[in-house]
Amino acid sequence: MLKGIPPLLSPELLKALDEMGHGDELVIADGNFPAESIGSSEGHTVIRCDGHGALEVLEAVLAVLPIDTYDDEPITLMEVVPGDPVETPIWQQYHDAVRRYDARGEKAFKTLERFAFYEAAKRAHCVIATSESAQYANLLIRKGCVLGDDVWTPER
Amino acid sequence: MLKGIPPLLSPELLKALDEMGHGDELVIADGNFPAESIGSSEGHTVIRCDGHGALEVLEAVLAVLPIDTYDDEPITLMEVVPGDPVETPIWQQYHDAVRRYDARGEKAFKTLERFAFYEAAKRAHCVIATSESAQYANLLIRKGCVLGDDVWTPER
Amino acid sequence: MLKGIPPLLSPELLKALDEMGHGDELVIADGNFPAESIGSSEGHTVIRCDGHGALEVLEAVLAVLPIDTYDDEPITLMEVVPGDPVETPIWQQYHDAVRRYDARGEKAFKTLERFAFYEAAKRAHCVIATSESAQYANLLIRKGCVLGDDVWTPER
Amino acid sequence: MLKGIPPLLSPELLKALDEMGHGDELVIADGNFPAESIGSSEGHTVIRCDGHGALEVLEAVLAVLPIDTYDDEPITLMEVVPGDPVETPIWQQYHDAVRRYDARGEKAFKTLERFAFYEAAKRAHCVIATSESAQYANLLIRKGCVLGDDVWTPER
Amino acid sequence: MLKGIPPLLSPELLKALDEMGHGDELVIADGNFPAESIGSSEGHTVIRCDGHGALEVLEAVLAVLPIDTYDDEPITLMEVVPGDPVETPIWQQYHDAVRRYDARGEKAFKTLERFAFYEAAKRAHCVIATSESAQYANLLIRKGCVLGDDVWTPER
Amino acid sequence: MLKGIPPLLSPELLKALDEMGHGDELVIADGNFPAESIGSSEGHTVIRCDGHGALEVLEAVLAVLPIDTYDDEPITLMEVVPGDPVETPIWQQYHDAVRRYDARGEKAFKTLERFAFYEAAKRAHCVIATSESAQYANLLIRKGCVLGDDVWTPER
Amino acid sequence: MLKGIPPLLSPELLKALDEMGHGDELVIADGNFPAESIGSSEGHTVIRCDGHGALEVLEAVLAVLPIDTYDDEPITLMEVVPGDPVETPIWQQYHDAVRRYDARGEKAFKTLERFAFYEAAKRAHCVIATSESAQYANLLIRKGCVLGDDVWTPER
Amino acid sequence: MLKGIPPLLSPELLKALDEMGHGDELVIADGNFPAESIGSSEGHTVIRCDGHGALEVLEAVLAVLPIDTYDDEPITLMEVVPGDPVETPIWQQYHDAVRRYDARGEKAFKTLERFAFYEAAKRAHCVIATSESAQYANLLIRKGCVLGDDVWTPER
Amino acid sequence: MLKGIPPLLSPELLKALDEMGHGDELVIADGNFPAESIGSSEGHTVIRCDGHGALEVLEAVLAVLPIDTYDDEPITLMEVVPGDPVETPIWQQYHDAVRRYDARGEKAFKTLERFAFYEAAKRAHCVIATSESAQYANLLIRKGCVLGDDVWTPER
Amino acid sequence: MLKGIPPLLSPELLKALDEMGHGDELVIADGNFPAESIGSSEGHTVIRCDGHGALEVLEAVLAVLPIDTYDDEPITLMEVVPGDPVETPIWQQYHDAVRRYDARGEKAFKTLERFAFYEAAKRAHCVIATSESAQYANLLIRKGCVLGDDVWTPER
Repeated sequence: MLKGIPPLLSPELLKALDEMGHGDELVIADGNFPAESIGSSEGHTVIRCDGHGALEVLEAVLAVLPIDTYDDEPITLMEVVPGDPVETPIWQQYHDAVRRYDARGEKAFKTLERFAFYEAAKRAHCVIATSESAQYANLLIRKGCVLGDDVWTPER
Repeated sequence: MLKGIPPLLSPELLKALDEMGHGDELVIADGNFPAESIGSSEGHTVIRCDGHGALEVLEAVLAVLPIDTYDDEPITLMEVVPGDPVETPIWQQYHDAVRRYDARGEKAFKTLERFAFYEAAKRAHCVIATSESAQYANLLIRKGCVLGDDVWTPER
Repeated sequence: MLKGIPPLLSPELLKALDEMGHGDELVIADGNFPAESIGSSEGHTVIRCDGHGALEVLEAVLAVLPIDTYDDEPITLMEVVPGDPVETPIWQQYHDAVRRYDARGEKAFKTLERFAFYEAAKRAHCVIATSESAQYANLLIRKGCVLGDDVWTPER
Repeated sequence: MLKGIPPLLSPELLKALDEMGHGDELVIADGNFPAESIGSSEGHTVIRCDGHGALEVLEAVLAVLPIDTYDDEPITLMEVVPGDPVETPIWQQYHDAVRRYDARGEKAFKTLERFAFYEAAKRAHCVIATSESAQYANLLIRKGCVLGDDVWTPER
Repeated sequence: MLKGIPPLLSPELLKALDEMGHGDELVIADGNFPAESIGSSEGHTVIRCDGHGALEVLEAVLAVLPIDTYDDEPITLMEVVPGDPVETPIWQQYHDAVRRYDARGEKAFKTLERFAFYEAAKRAHCVIATSESAQYANLLIRKGCVLGDDVWTPER
Repeated sequence: MLKGIPPLLSPELLKALDEMGHGDELVIADGNFPAESIGSSEGHTVIRCDGHGALEVLEAVLAVLPIDTYDDEPITLMEVVPGDPVETPIWQQYHDAVRRYDARGEKAFKTLERFAFYEAAKRAHCVIATSESAQYANLLIRKGCVLGDDVWTPER
Repeated sequence: MLKGIPPLLSPELLKALDEMGHGDELVIADGNFPAESIGSSEGHTVIRCDGHGALEVLEAVLAVLPIDTYDDEPITLMEVVPGDPVETPIWQQYHDAVRRYDARGEKAFKTLERFAFYEAAKRAHCVIATSESAQYANLLIRKGCVLGDDVWTPER
Repeated sequence: MLKGIPPLLSPELLKALDEMGHGDELVIADGNFPAESIGSSEGHTVIRCDGHGALEVLEAVLAVLPIDTYDDEPITLMEVVPGDPVETPIWQQYHDAVRRYDARGEKAFKTLERFAFYEAAKRAHCVIATSESAQYANLLIRKGCVLGDDVWTPER
Repeated sequence: MLKGIPPLLSPELLKALDEMGHGDELVIADGNFPAESIGSSEGHTVIRCDGHGALEVLEAVLAVLPIDTYDDEPITLMEVVPGDPVETPIWQQYHDAVRRYDARGEKAFKTLERFAFYEAAKRAHCVIATSESAQYANLLIRKGCVLGDDVWTPER
Repeated sequence: MLKGIPPLLSPELLKALDEMGHGDELVIADGNFPAESIGSSEGHTVIRCDGHGALEVLEAVLAVLPIDTYDDEPITLMEVVPGDPVETPIWQQYHDAVRRYDARGEKAFKTLERFAFYEAAKRAHCVIATSESAQYANLLIRKGCVLGDDVWTPER
């Protein structure tokens, strides 16, 4: 553990987020997402967050990682498969969490069909595997730049 | 880079600091310290910070890492070899930097003879190799607990 | 995720628990425990459960892992350092959780002085690193045998 | 060994099954299947179950792994090569075993020509190599979601 | 699979048995034996035979591996812990299996106290982890020489 | 060494042959064959049999490995380069060795032009590098199924 | 540290620069560049220079590495994204630093559109990740030949 | 294969012999020697020469490797275990082979008791595992210096 | 070092040359050749011969490696880039060195344009990196067969 | 190759010299020194300089590496074995080469008996294996500090 950094971010996850640059993407995967096969399909990193819901992971990530402002819709959700009657109330919670860090809120989100989402996820820099039991709870987030006040400066 | 975290802390160094627990030690080594042979002698981690002075590394580390309060003298300096006329003005800068995070300031420091320092360094969890050109500028720091206000909590 | 198995148990943790045999020990470490340096000091496995409390990890582990019945006190707690005024209410929660699986309850616990606990932890088969913020919340648990009704049999 | 989990599932196999997500596939290969060359051809995992028949492996796998309900025929058998007079009575046993976990039973199965089966197998997440001596006894199974009652909840 | 070689012997196990020489030992471990921690404690090989009983493993091993004739008691069993009321009928089956390959039969066996057995097992060349549910079913076997008729010669 | 298994088959070669399944191919390469560059070109296994002729390797391999009966010409030789006056008397020895295990004898062989042979060899599961000094002495063999009497059964 | 060699060049970076030959390229990346995902996308080397500005890294590199004279514009900058109002005063500093080693100065530079720059960077031999906070501060440099006076000769 | 170098010396064995220096030892092990457990017990190299007799390996080794002249008895044989009636005619063949390279012939040999030989073998630089079927056929050879006429010089 | 083998051939280089077969190619690269990026671009071996000229490396290689006789021009030089005024007197030295081993001498050489040479070099089995300061001094050599008198035979 | 750095120093050797600190030692080994067994005996680095004499390696090393001034005799030679009539004229050349960098010249050298030298060499940070044909030509050198004028500073 470190001072002022979310404990949920494991040393390995903190390292992965820090290694990402402008335009790199990460997946926050729900508990039924094929995280290992997709995450390792092109040699990228899979980081386990078993036992955690996706919302608490999102909140911890946004505490240190800026969302891309060069991309109008930097966050992607997986569309419900046609015919599947399931509801997605967790999406509203995602909108609220994002709004605390980015004024665009819900407008920063787009959706992608299930298999297109899988293809996009294969290009992500890392995949965070949660145990979120809600369905269609996967997120694909594009990192922005660390600029201005977000840059740490020594207290002297 | 991440928001609010010192850029000097590389992803690997951030991970190493996060992996350390109460009582673990780290070395901030000057440019002539045998960092690789000592750091690797018992399978521990050597992290390169070439080109940096030891003071700026110390300031970045203290921004996230608590100093041990269970140990009365949690920071160790290498004693000047008897007969060596060199001065150590950098020690005063170290005292000042520590005082910004720990009220004990200079009282948190002890010293150790050169070869005893090497032996202690071999037990450290990681060795950070700087290019500090000042002599006798090595530091051995014991990590404390992350407690109370130092623990991150979500903004909701 | 698998059917009927605690989601908090990551694939790697499930594998580690399954690899353990009668008499092997595991550590459930609190957030300030030096899990990496102790866990790796003799080549054993460190498994990250960042963001979780120690109690929820204990409950998930006991769902699949039997406690040793050949040892009268198969669970060990770290004693409070003399002079430290901190309280340990989490110990009562541990007693209750164990009692749901083992009739001995509180009687299955013993304590060990801080540095002796570290030495014992170095011999454990795996160390589970949680983010438990309570102090003195570490546990050392000895695995028992899987016998009788605990052995899975096919439904035919 | 763990409580209530099939002993036949080795720690490594248990880990592999747990890492799989919705839509990932596994192969249960008979004793003459080229498991290593196909399983390793795209960097996937081969897990040895030498000495076991395919039916006992299937029963152990289905005890923890849900079959896909989004796919009408989530299980694939290898078609007999035209002209080969061999019979495949083991298929009936497979139907019965699946029916105990999925009401679709035989309807959940489709078949694929020998070399097409090899190509499909190369995309599977893991290949389990048995010593099944029956011919055409290979299975390709698509994992479903862990939902509702299948999700473990703590006993409190 | 290969012609005339027990299918239960996995490629890795076959390789390990072949690599052993005169005087090397192997452990056939029951399902509760701490196979991984003991087997890996000095860098030796652990080979999984999950789902198998120890007797069928013993029979497959003896089909290719000679028992040491320079040692009067080349096979070791773990003694029942004093006070434990469990019976060990599997020992008789072991005697019978050995007698089919070595006229000494039961006389080739000795016993060792539980923790002394663990120490001896740490020096073995490989540990075979079975799922044998019988207690005190572990075996430590010393390999002999391949001589005379046991040496393969080409059919010309 | 093991009882009744050709000593020439090293532990690693024995493992490789055992890992092969129906339809997998192996190359027995003469001393001038580019075994390492071809064998490693697609990540397959190269096994050294330096100092041995190809015929003795062939005889040892056929003692445990069945030839494919689903393929009419499961063994391939490299054609003499047009214009090269060299003779290939070793081919007759190969025919005789194969006939001892497969009634098809010479009819089981086909030939392939030099560079086409190289391409086929790149797809083989393993390449065995001998020191055979005869030219055009390379063999590409397709493994069959282990069935019926070839399957080992315990002596009880 | 070594005599007369820039301390900022870590042992690993010095090795990487030395391994490069005529025509090989390196990237000096600013703090927001996706150095890890691009640098590792084709198996190349990423070297961390966290905490350093790009100009000081450039100066250290040019002290030992010749710029290509066979290529008219051996240094590439990333073009400002159309519509982005940011200024790039650091480019002038780059021109000045290069002019100290190569008379072409500013004429040795060309620019490339953001995503084309990413593609070019993927082919570089190594990527040096700095913490440069200026935007559009990335450099792609092609190494020249070490010839004539640049070749070290022993002092005898 | 290379010009004028024994084909039996595999690339790996040639490399190992070349890496040895004055005073390093190698073992030529017979088919029942525990080559892997002894050879790997202190991290040294085991090289397989399965299918070969020890005499042909000795002849190939002596073609390139000088015997130590600083040691009066640089070659060691394993003594027959007291009470074992086996004869060792292969020793005479070893004496003759050595005499062709070293005038000392039989006088260059000493013997060592079985378990003392094992201990000495653990300190050897490499162990060559043959399939020699003769008993007590192991050799421990100390390398000498390459001097004078033994040093290659270019033909100009 | 070994008897009668050029000391310049390191153990690793000797191994690489021995592993090559008929038709495999090696590059002897001058000091400015991009040996690491080209040599590692397809997973082949790069062997360092820093500090050596290319001619002495060529002489050492030809002492053990036969040149291909099935290829009319088995050795390739890199053509001078059009407009470059540099001379290539080292080529004459190469012709003379080759003539000592192959009567074709200069006729065994062809040339290839710079970037075509790079492409050909990427397919070579190994790249030897020298410090040759002459320009256009790279060589691409195709290995022939070891036949007849070149094959070592034991002195008995 | 890099500007102004001895070409004989390979990238790996340059890295190793740079990683060394004050008090670390390196061995320059002659062609008959057991470099690999001693160099790897405690996990240190062996670097090949085959084909080079020890004097040219020494000259290249001293161009970048300072000799220890805190130790009165920082360079060690191996004593001639009593009774060996060989002369050591190369020692005079070593004295001269050192004098060009350190005014102490011959006084900086001490000697150590053969086996004591081996023990000291095992503690060295790296061993450089040359092909020096002179006997007793090994050197053990202790690195000093890089201070004052030896520290590189940018030309601005």
